Amino acid sequence: MAIRCSIEQLGITHAISSPIEHHAVLHTLEDLHHNNKVKLSLVKIDNKGVVDLNHLEELLKSNPRTFVSLMHANNEVGTVLPLVEVGNICAKYDALFHSDTVQTMGHLPHNLGETNVQFINCAAHKFHGPKGVGFIYINSKVKIKPFITGGAQERNMRGGTENLYGIVGLAKALEVSYTHMTEDKEKVQGLKNYMIDQLQKNIPDVQFNGDISDDSLYTVLNVSLPPTPIAEMMLFNLDIRGIAASGGSACSSGSEVGSHVLTALGTNPDRPAVRFSFSRFNTKDEVDYAITQLVELYKM
Amino acid sequence: MAIRCSIEQLGITHAISSPIEHHAVLHTLEDLHHNNKVKLSLVKIDNKGVVDLNHLEELLKSNPRTFVSLMHANNEVGTVLPLVEVGNICAKYDALFHSDTVQTMGHLPHNLGETNVQFINCAAHKFHGPKGVGFIYINSKVKIKPFITGGAQERNMRGGTENLYGIVGLAKALEVSYTHMTEDKEKVQGLKNYMIDQLQKNIPDVQFNGDISDDSLYTVLNVSLPPTPIAEMMLFNLDIRGIAASGGSACSSGSEVGSHVLTALGTNPDRPAVRFSFSRFNTKDEVDYAITQLVELYKM
Repeated sequence: MAIRCSIEQLGITHAISSPIEHHAVLHTLEDLHHNNKVKLSLVKIDNKGVVDLNHLEELLKSNPRTFVSLMHANNEVGTVLPLVEVGNICAKYDALFHSDTVQTMGHLPHNLGETNVQFINCAAHKFHGPKGVGFIYINSKVKIKPFITGGAQERNMRGGTENLYGIVGLAKALEVSYTHMTEDKEKVQGLKNYMIDQLQKNIPDVQFNGDISDDSLYTVLNVSLPPTPIAEMMLFNLDIRGIAASGGSACSSGSEVGSHVLTALGTNPDRPAVRFSFSRFNTKDEVDYAITQLVELYKM
Repeated sequence: MAIRCSIEQLGITHAISSPIEHHAVLHTLEDLHHNNKVKLSLVKIDNKGVVDLNHLEELLKSNPRTFVSLMHANNEVGTVLPLVEVGNICAKYDALFHSDTVQTMGHLPHNLGETNVQFINCAAHKFHGPKGVGFIYINSKVKIKPFITGGAQERNMRGGTENLYGIVGLAKALEVSYTHMTEDKEKVQGLKNYMIDQLQKNIPDVQFNGDISDDSLYTVLNVSLPPTPIAEMMLFNLDIRGIAASGGSACSSGSEVGSHVLTALGTNPDRPAVRFSFSRFNTKDEVDYAITQLVELYKM
């Protein structure tokens, strides 16, 4: 919404995003591109999804009035963008910078006073808040007209009766997240590293998609499993064994299209990709159970 | 949203609404009119807010490709549109018909199989469901592209993680409303008629804005009180006496602008207008209390 409003209202002629950006962002930018409202450039990334900052700067140099949209952490593979550094590059070329921070809000601290970013956003269910509520931060220097007109709610920026209990739930969940962020990060990072270790010990030829270092998002691990005849039934098999994992993004659940992120990273389509997510409510026993089940599935 | 999408995507060149339409609709249509995307005509209404159907037909005759937006019941004064009749007129001239049914959903039965209407909408909190959730019905003959792009949710029509508990709450509240609609209507209509009667007996020169017959919306009563030095403090005084009433629409709460509905009906600005709303949870005792407090305020 902020993207469409900004591009249509602020004289933006060029947009930069990445091939592994969230499809909600990519679809919007591609739509604007096809309707000749903006020229879209995709920044180069490496095979882990790390953005090529030199290429970003090249694209900015040759295009004035640019809108940059690069997500803070990729939702499927967990690769993290150096937000402050990208913000500084954007500021240097007077570009507007939007970062989808849905994956990191409540998990990594955000200091907006020290980050040159014009828009960030969040979804409460990513940090144990209620579903269907989120917020967008718009830097006060940016003046855009609302996307949803109507009532005077939310300082005239979004008409409509507010989802009150959702808003209260979001605020409380974010407060809880910030209060325990350091301990939770340590615990969850420990679970993720334990799973990486156990997978490497128990599944021969296991690989990982995206960055798995401690710099990556500690709540996500995208596992590239060895080819198997039951590849297409992998998630189904995990599901009936009580393991909730995902193949791509939750937003495309039910659709038959493969992950545009894994395609852009050039992963081998014969290797099943399974995304495991971790929270402070997960346990080591659950990781052990998942490993045991995976090992069994590879014996079948 | 449906209005904007329809007008922009379906070759609509003309829109018809009324001066007392909900401001969310009017603002959208006026915005499209000012941006030369559509020509806007306002249909004539009488001093109770009843739409002049002959004028509606005249406007439709001289303008092809029209989008009509007329609310089923006015939220401030309760005047009801003859929905089936207006639907038939729109069908005769091949116009698209949107009716804001927010006030009537859960209170009056809707039979979409017998109504020529392309779009209706609802908000759960109008029938004791949760705030911040609603639905839009789009007739399957109308093909429009989504307003909010992104994920594949809601059959690709509205991207974004759904407000799940809100949706469940809406469905349950609507089910409860339909189960008891006949008894509830009778009870609430009785309360409204009792209040009209008591006001006429106790407040000399009391008047009413809009239609107050049994054909009007039984949940709303807009009272035109006699001029008083405390006119501007009327709602405040009722509030501190524990009576929740409204001056205009709840959507403009906090704004200093007067009601565009009452202005359009040509009401006397010196007479305080107070909108009382009734539900199945209200009692006769509460009506008596409100009358007593109003009488006291007029003795001050």
